[in-house]
Amino acid sequence: MRQPAPPFCPSLKFIAASLLVLASQLGQAQTAAPAPEVDLATLARIRDAALQSDFAWQRLANLADKIGPRLAGSPGAEAAAAQVGAAMAAAGLAVTQQPVKVPHWERGEERAELVDYAGRPAGITQRLVLTTLGGSAATPAAGLTAPVLLVHGIDELAARAAEVPGKIVLISVPFDQHLADNGLAGAAYGQAGEPRFRGPSVAAKLGAAAVLVRSVGAANYRLPHTGATGFAPGVQPLPAAALSAEDAMLIERLAAEGPVTMKLVLTPRTLPDADGHNVLADLPGREHPDEVVIVSGHLDSWDLGTGAMDDGMGVAAAMGAVQVLKSLGLSPRRTVRMVAWANEENGARGGKAYFESVKGKLPTQVAAIESDFGLGDPLGFFGAISEAELKRLAPVAQVLRSIGAGVMTTRAGEAGTDIEPLQQAGVPGFAPLVDTRHYFDYHHTAADTLDKVDPQALRKQVALLAVLSYALAEMKTPLARVPAGH
Amino acid sequence: MRQPAPPFCPSLKFIAASLLVLASQLGQAQTAAPAPEVDLATLARIRDAALQSDFAWQRLANLADKIGPRLAGSPGAEAAAAQVGAAMAAAGLAVTQQPVKVPHWERGEERAELVDYAGRPAGITQRLVLTTLGGSAATPAAGLTAPVLLVHGIDELAARAAEVPGKIVLISVPFDQHLADNGLAGAAYGQAGEPRFRGPSVAAKLGAAAVLVRSVGAANYRLPHTGATGFAPGVQPLPAAALSAEDAMLIERLAAEGPVTMKLVLTPRTLPDADGHNVLADLPGREHPDEVVIVSGHLDSWDLGTGAMDDGMGVAAAMGAVQVLKSLGLSPRRTVRMVAWANEENGARGGKAYFESVKGKLPTQVAAIESDFGLGDPLGFFGAISEAELKRLAPVAQVLRSIGAGVMTTRAGEAGTDIEPLQQAGVPGFAPLVDTRHYFDYHHTAADTLDKVDPQALRKQVALLAVLSYALAEMKTPLARVPAGH
Ligand SMILES: [Zn+2]
Ligand SMILES: [Zn+2]
Repeated sequence: MRQPAPPFCPSLKFIAASLLVLASQLGQAQTAAPAPEVDLATLARIRDAALQSDFAWQRLANLADKIGPRLAGSPGAEAAAAQVGAAMAAAGLAVTQQPVKVPHWERGEERAELVDYAGRPAGITQRLVLTTLGGSAATPAAGLTAPVLLVHGIDELAARAAEVPGKIVLISVPFDQHLADNGLAGAAYGQAGEPRFRGPSVAAKLGAAAVLVRSVGAANYRLPHTGATGFAPGVQPLPAAALSAEDAMLIERLAAEGPVTMKLVLTPRTLPDADGHNVLADLPGREHPDEVVIVSGHLDSWDLGTGAMDDGMGVAAAMGAVQVLKSLGLSPRRTVRMVAWANEENGARGGKAYFESVKGKLPTQVAAIESDFGLGDPLGFFGAISEAELKRLAPVAQVLRSIGAGVMTTRAGEAGTDIEPLQQAGVPGFAPLVDTRHYFDYHHTAADTLDKVDPQALRKQVALLAVLSYALAEMKTPLARVPAGH
Repeated sequence: MRQPAPPFCPSLKFIAASLLVLASQLGQAQTAAPAPEVDLATLARIRDAALQSDFAWQRLANLADKIGPRLAGSPGAEAAAAQVGAAMAAAGLAVTQQPVKVPHWERGEERAELVDYAGRPAGITQRLVLTTLGGSAATPAAGLTAPVLLVHGIDELAARAAEVPGKIVLISVPFDQHLADNGLAGAAYGQAGEPRFRGPSVAAKLGAAAVLVRSVGAANYRLPHTGATGFAPGVQPLPAAALSAEDAMLIERLAAEGPVTMKLVLTPRTLPDADGHNVLADLPGREHPDEVVIVSGHLDSWDLGTGAMDDGMGVAAAMGAVQVLKSLGLSPRRTVRMVAWANEENGARGGKAYFESVKGKLPTQVAAIESDFGLGDPLGFFGAISEAELKRLAPVAQVLRSIGAGVMTTRAGEAGTDIEPLQQAGVPGFAPLVDTRHYFDYHHTAADTLDKVDPQALRKQVALLAVLSYALAEMKTPLARVPAGH
């Protein structure tokens, strides 16, 4: 999608055939369109107002530029919750600060160098660029020095278990940008991310001294990509870091010639759980104020960048969506609730705490949208619901087509980390479909900054979230619940 | 050049007209071609041998991966001189290590944060990403805190002289990638680099506390680009650093709302001059061994990356060029001399020392080539000589056309920093023309690493340097000297 047109010369026959196909599709659309459940003119009015508004951009600029990093437990996280709550209250919404106990992890020092390898001239060591993974344990303050064991995946790590004890394990799996270029960034992240998600725990069980993963993400500018890792119950956490792609490739080359020895210094600290907050802002429903459609993003962000795209953009778009409904004086049948989640990145405690607060009244949770796919232009949306139920949202896709965001598709499984507990309990989950070709260039790096976000892409995302959340809140009857295991 | 073909449908008339133009050009070429001064078959043989050789790639990999950073005065610089000399001696060339006293500057600590600005929540500061400029003075070890004065060029700095005393001056000039995309990377570097070259000295004279420049270069990945600055005689050096483009933009946005205060810690050290070496490796001429054609690159590199493209690639290509002539058993009339210069980046002492060593016998210096434009595919070469003299090198362009490197053009002025003293004295200077569209993405950053270099582009560069240096050394009579001021 959105590729440049190939340089071809259409024959008259081709043009004629194309027109016939188009004509037949138009005919089908006219006969198949059901009577819309929500008023198309209202949806169009919401879309157009969103495209005129800079409310979301101002909110995003405040989050990214005035506060910056917002990792759970940090001063930035709490400042952000206060700022978001104040902005939504000022916009006339009913704000709740929902307390959440969040993990509290601090980065500390992070450095490494290669101290020996084949062909090393006397006196030379090679400095590496890396960043500690969230949840990592610390090395001794003076660092640890050990041979590197290079493997290319979890399978190879397991197969070479006997070599692991005492080693600094490097799991080097490159990010497949070709997948990302073809709309499959999530799959690319899953493949390249597996060593980060699972590798440290596996390596710890096998007796490694530390574990490094090749940074997940494309765009090699010696830029390490952080992110959370985790350890299975009973496994003692070990020092774990993401190495820049360049340095992973360097070690691949050096290791082909002989043993490689590294000195590693990582001094993160895991502190007692801290106080955080989900921020809720309600536009009360006119018929069923107790029934809720969630439109959300996550307020926390990694500490290296300013979290403009992950997920300042999602939070700002959700804020903007509710604000645009409010500014138009709209009050759909059900409540539209903006949620800025407290802790997506390293614990998902925000979504869990919210779920705990509503689990006794789950039928009131009608649908949930989370926007957490970053900076790209929205292309449409997906719902983790049945094809038949999705068709009821055809008017949403219809009014979004003029801004290039009219794709509507089903997709099973998690639509967002924070709404997953709701989805597991049967609540229909939704997320925007966005251009993610360059998302993983910046994701979880120091380069996740405001300049990466296109204000017009943000306005379009506001339009999408506003139209979709309005439609979900306005439908005569809620969408059907989603059966377990869908 | 090298843009994808536009999607157009050529008319028969257009095709016919194009064929006529092509036919007339072919006709001109056939009638205008002079009898070549050097044997075309030999040049073609050199080109083809270069394209088959991995000698240069191995040399480059050794420099970048086994040694890495090679700033003058560092252990890496001396290890590199030894390694290059050993490799050329092993290839059968006559090696000289020419002593050069070089500057010795060490980076130290570098960090900064914004400690106050409009709308700053209590307890929040913003960490910046920056890197000290070569030649910078140090702040106090505990740092200095001062208001930021934002200007957009040297002119504005001068115009606002009264506001400068005690301030941390930020000169923010963006890099114009559009120029680079159009083959004018040098102009883009000149424009965006002026604040780095001249700004610190001007700001120091006006009483600034420190000066920051927006990083020179494209490709914003929160990646600061270092480089040398200098201070006019009698001006006391001040702390000077390059701020990541993202952080320069952040300060632009914050400064639009009110005063911005920064804390800055830079602890570089300027040490006594150190011992460095130009490495010379000669393929002696068969008729005039005392007459020399230089083919060269610079051995020193900035300390953030591994100097693979700036200028490991140039050194490796020059080494490969002489090696390929040697391996073919060729011995042109004059000596071909590979030079790996000791100190391009922060002092140009290597070129000056060489010039001192030959200034009593300048007629022996027949021509000089320096390759210092990085990682791109070569497109041809330019000579700082007259159009008429350049035409004598038509056979070189002719044999390079099949590898896309057949452009030959004159260009006045410096062809390379290290050969400039020779050029000033009338020696014809040459340099490859290369694809520099992405050179300044990596130049002087931590991301200047081996993976950025395409082995095939390096082979082509070896071919170009070998063919050109052979032709210059083989011509019956040397090229005419270049008049001063050309
Ligand atoms: Zn996220
Ligand atoms: Zn250079």
